[in-house]
Amino acid sequence: MQQITSRENPLVKEYIRLGASARHRAGQGLFVLEGARLAADALDSGARLRAAFFETGVLERHAALVRRIQAQKIPVYGLTAPVAAKMAATQTPQGIFCIAEILDKALSLDKISIYGAYLAVEAVQDPGNIGAMLRSAEALGVDGVLLSPGCADIWSPKVVRASMGAVFRLKVYELQDFCGTLRALRAQGMKTLAATADAGADDLTREPLSGGIVACVGNEGAGLSAGCLSVCDKRVTIRMKGRAESLNAAAAAAILMWEIEKQR
Amino acid sequence: MQQITSRENPLVKEYIRLGASARHRAGQGLFVLEGARLAADALDSGARLRAAFFETGVLERHAALVRRIQAQKIPVYGLTAPVAAKMAATQTPQGIFCIAEILDKALSLDKISIYGAYLAVEAVQDPGNIGAMLRSAEALGVDGVLLSPGCADIWSPKVVRASMGAVFRLKVYELQDFCGTLRALRAQGMKTLAATADAGADDLTREPLSGGIVACVGNEGAGLSAGCLSVCDKRVTIRMKGRAESLNAAAAAAILMWEIEKQR
Repeated sequence: MQQITSRENPLVKEYIRLGASARHRAGQGLFVLEGARLAADALDSGARLRAAFFETGVLERHAALVRRIQAQKIPVYGLTAPVAAKMAATQTPQGIFCIAEILDKALSLDKISIYGAYLAVEAVQDPGNIGAMLRSAEALGVDGVLLSPGCADIWSPKVVRASMGAVFRLKVYELQDFCGTLRALRAQGMKTLAATADAGADDLTREPLSGGIVACVGNEGAGLSAGCLSVCDKRVTIRMKGRAESLNAAAAAAILMWEIEKQR
Repeated sequence: MQQITSRENPLVKEYIRLGASARHRAGQGLFVLEGARLAADALDSGARLRAAFFETGVLERHAALVRRIQAQKIPVYGLTAPVAAKMAATQTPQGIFCIAEILDKALSLDKISIYGAYLAVEAVQDPGNIGAMLRSAEALGVDGVLLSPGCADIWSPKVVRASMGAVFRLKVYELQDFCGTLRALRAQGMKTLAATADAGADDLTREPLSGGIVACVGNEGAGLSAGCLSVCDKRVTIRMKGRAESLNAAAAAAILMWEIEKQR
């Protein structure tokens, strides 16, 4: 196993650059992930690793994972502690890092089942929120997530981590024309719901939510755009007893998906 | 108005230290906040500011807020752009910063209404999760939140920000003896629910949730401790169709509080 002892090693620098730049990730078709669980999740989901890095002191504890990676002819590098510390982006680093190929999420829209349930997310910029939404979507069993331009890059380290690997497994549609797609799905008979903090909107709990459905949530501050609101056939709100406009986007999405899945 | 032009100014250093250290915040009885909305929220909630800092370029746009602060005889400082950049901890800084007195949250437990609904949080360490829980608790209308030792400090800048000021307004009980308090509340007739990812637990949607209730959620990785589980009178789970154990703590808490509030 080759050892990396310099923090200026080109592979280390490439790892850090991939973590920092969405443009570089897109150009290279690569992303990075950290930790034993995400590495195993990635392998389980058929993601192809390009390289794996283990701090020397943790090699023994993670021997099974190392063997699994090496069995796929993927190069594994040993790291000194200072190099591992430079690469770490989590609060409690495990000393395990991978470079992996971005999974092909260019899913054709005709893969959307008009009888399914989907979350559609417009311009949510916080990677933690996007990651949490993907995680909740998978946990609650929706069929997929549609993302507008302007959402956080799903291959950013924070999204991958917050999603707990759901990004590997879930159907995620990165749309160029968000409103146009919603309009097309509505024309095919899907119910299109716009979640809003507007107290005048219909109460979510009184809404029939069965059948093919697309539930839209908007940007953290601005909510859904006028364009998206105009193509949805219904506005719904999570009726709140406390201060209005106060649920964050990920919490609102979780409650929305929960109510939809309860009726399916 | 006094101008601060040096990044080494003692007040600037104190601001940064208060943001970084829970111990220093507790010792001084002070916390920091950033942005016009949080500053106004703090004033609305009766928090006492010790000092306010405005980047010189934004003074005019926020003249009403500046006047409101100065009317309370609170010193307002002008900042050069490099000083403001040093103090900023948000992604899109507004150039507005305050040092404020920690609100007295040492609420007596006899203030807990045994007919109310409370969220109890054990050892949730991520400030974003604690902040999101406080925000959802306020939005959904629960009566208060009980926090165990080991939860993220509610006065950390990330909690204050993620809570969108809910931390100023909500009843938050920082408990020394988490399990003992739960036991006492149960003895007084409150229903004590332990939320768990254990598929063998009772389905949340089949549970009567009216009346006095304390709903407990646990640590991001480990869930609730054995001690807490043993003092609760019921274990409930959010039945999931996707992968088990996959909702994050804040999403699970939002769904839990949503179901409770629907039944009240």
